[in-house]
Amino acid sequence: MKIKDLRVHSIAVADPPLRSSYGLHAPYALRTIIELESEDGIVGINETYGGEAPAAALRAIRGRIIGQDAFRITGLLQSDTTPTSTSRDRSQTYLLPGENPLDEHTRTFAAIEVACLDLIGKSIGVAVCDLLGGRVRNKVPFSAYPFFKHAGGGGEGDDVREDEYGEALNPEAVVMQVKEMIARYGFGSVKFKGGVFDPDLEIATVRLMREEFGPSIPLRIDPNAAWTVETAVRVGATLADALSNGGYLEDPVAGIAHMASVRKRLLDLGIQTPLASNVAITSFDHIPAAVASDAVQVILCDHHYWGGMRQVQHLAKLAHTFNIGLSMHSNSHLGISLMAMAHVAAATPHLTYACDTHYPWQSEKDEVVTGGRIDIKHGCVTIPEKPGLGVDLDFDQLARGKERYGRISYKKRDDEAEMRRRIDPGWKRLLPRW
Amino acid sequence: MKIKDLRVHSIAVADPPLRSSYGLHAPYALRTIIELESEDGIVGINETYGGEAPAAALRAIRGRIIGQDAFRITGLLQSDTTPTSTSRDRSQTYLLPGENPLDEHTRTFAAIEVACLDLIGKSIGVAVCDLLGGRVRNKVPFSAYPFFKHAGGGGEGDDVREDEYGEALNPEAVVMQVKEMIARYGFGSVKFKGGVFDPDLEIATVRLMREEFGPSIPLRIDPNAAWTVETAVRVGATLADALSNGGYLEDPVAGIAHMASVRKRLLDLGIQTPLASNVAITSFDHIPAAVASDAVQVILCDHHYWGGMRQVQHLAKLAHTFNIGLSMHSNSHLGISLMAMAHVAAATPHLTYACDTHYPWQSEKDEVVTGGRIDIKHGCVTIPEKPGLGVDLDFDQLARGKERYGRISYKKRDDEAEMRRRIDPGWKRLLPRW
Repeated sequence: MKIKDLRVHSIAVADPPLRSSYGLHAPYALRTIIELESEDGIVGINETYGGEAPAAALRAIRGRIIGQDAFRITGLLQSDTTPTSTSRDRSQTYLLPGENPLDEHTRTFAAIEVACLDLIGKSIGVAVCDLLGGRVRNKVPFSAYPFFKHAGGGGEGDDVREDEYGEALNPEAVVMQVKEMIARYGFGSVKFKGGVFDPDLEIATVRLMREEFGPSIPLRIDPNAAWTVETAVRVGATLADALSNGGYLEDPVAGIAHMASVRKRLLDLGIQTPLASNVAITSFDHIPAAVASDAVQVILCDHHYWGGMRQVQHLAKLAHTFNIGLSMHSNSHLGISLMAMAHVAAATPHLTYACDTHYPWQSEKDEVVTGGRIDIKHGCVTIPEKPGLGVDLDFDQLARGKERYGRISYKKRDDEAEMRRRIDPGWKRLLPRW
Repeated sequence: MKIKDLRVHSIAVADPPLRSSYGLHAPYALRTIIELESEDGIVGINETYGGEAPAAALRAIRGRIIGQDAFRITGLLQSDTTPTSTSRDRSQTYLLPGENPLDEHTRTFAAIEVACLDLIGKSIGVAVCDLLGGRVRNKVPFSAYPFFKHAGGGGEGDDVREDEYGEALNPEAVVMQVKEMIARYGFGSVKFKGGVFDPDLEIATVRLMREEFGPSIPLRIDPNAAWTVETAVRVGATLADALSNGGYLEDPVAGIAHMASVRKRLLDLGIQTPLASNVAITSFDHIPAAVASDAVQVILCDHHYWGGMRQVQHLAKLAHTFNIGLSMHSNSHLGISLMAMAHVAAATPHLTYACDTHYPWQSEKDEVVTGGRIDIKHGCVTIPEKPGLGVDLDFDQLARGKERYGRISYKKRDDEAEMRRRIDPGWKRLLPRW
């Protein structure tokens, strides 16, 4: 199945002013859509990180892709020359997901791999999950993903989107946001983005959620490494009940050693709340130290930066082997990424938590798959009875996204700069902040 | 790609009287050949452990296979209910490969998985290695595999086979055996089966090989856990030079804890010779303890009992992550297993040693693939430009193998009983023996 063409499309989609320890989401999230065409004229598609650098990296390997057999793609990852002695720097502690140059190769390979799988699937009439060994589930559960946010639905000028959830800068408003999300999508668990305000306010927010939704809705809080070990232990101890029954404490502190300290101190207090990570642990290089020090009990996988779907399956088996849970990380994304996440999750037996998704934060107006937004019902995405990823490109919508990208000044995600621009000119990301 | 039929064929093939710490090879090695037929009438094939139990296990899951989609097979492994708290008993320390009932599910799944991959490959015109993410090598290196052996080429009555290598019960004869194998197949490394005679004789054998072949031919010795920690350390120290340059000491002692002791004591002596295992470590359950105690530096994979080709790929990534080398184990086998080993090796980036193979011990007269025996040239099997595994069944030869199986009394591998029957009526397997 020879590849005849690789087309790379940079698009922008409206994104609401969501807050995290990294700063503030800009009015646009950037994504890259790729098309991989075979000699038979069949096209595989995929979606990955946006902005200039990811698109440039994809264009740079175009010459190595054209003429290749879509089935024989592992060799591309094999040629990864990323040094393995830079584990710490390879994390997402200081850089946003998608922005660490040390992961560029794995991100680029992942983008090509999924497009190949979609191309293969569409060519032979098989769903991507079944190309990966076969689905073990048809419905993939996702979590509600509430954020502290300012007013606004994202976009600028003609692109301004309806603010579906409104401003949420206090516990009550965040709980309202979750209620709304559960009403619309039926989510059965909640991942709450913290690290934004004083930990006591965030503790109060989690507690209010627990009161409101009860123990049947597992809760997670993720401050993206904003806390000291001391603070993390205090929050962990205070929220021991609220995070019980399937919840976890995600990246409370920066780095594997600090994560291990938090774990040890919580265990000393008799608190079993698992620690999860997609900030300290973002590559296989990080795992030996994490395992040796019991730094994480849950790893958040993400095929976009772990090197593709097969690497996520390897990671899952590794996690299962070491009795580590597996969840899934998300970035702002559209329907192609959502379906890709669902397919790899469907083909991964050891997926032990509902996956994250930012999908509720995006708008129908920006979706680039035909038929509009993917359904999330009862909190789940169902694997469709269609070949490949099960989605196709809406070229009118793609053109709108490209036009938007060309028009705006945002070409690289920079939440810290955006925070300074919109909220606080003196703002700096501090690790730890509290 | 619905599966319409599963056919299970028990065959016997002549096998020379090879010695190991388990005892003596019987005059026949037993194998099971399976055919998996799709609704389109295309047939995928595979080869696995022989005798009554493996064939019965395959027949027992026939009802779960018929009507299934060959692409959706992971679920079968997912339903593995083997308890994970029996790591020690799951090893091959006390039972021969293929004989541990705790691994029956993974062995049975593996047999089906490979047949599915062959069926899929033959249906869509793609090589099995490329269904697994793509080949990273076209030629897969194998090792010469000398044994102490008695006179005879295996088989009984009309089945008696030519004794290509002659009796080999001393160092000189084993070196002659290796020379002959290298002359015929071009092997570039040697894996020597020890654990049979006094360790000093085996030390002398390895040293003679080193003298004869020089440091460019890496040497391994595998006594299948026949030694005490004391003896293993002495052999490791004595053979430090002879096993350097890409060699290893394989399963010198029984169990992960003893392996770790040997490793520590050798390191204390400044000896870096890696320890390898396919006896102490035969499942993912064994890995956490092995990693924590640095018990092995090389794992021998084997898709036949690790649960299939994808599980071997998971194992390889795990080994790479923990800086553990990967080699490949072999049992007495024919061309289908050899090609399956070659395909999974071709699609596994982190394969750091030449694979084991018993193939030189089998005969053209017993081969069941069309066109006769698979070529091993310059020590390598080349992945053919053919779909699936690249081999097809010779039904006349298959019929002869089945007839042979029906006629003989051997229905289960039992090297200890065979040793008593042929060599020493009082023989018992002792762990450790020396």
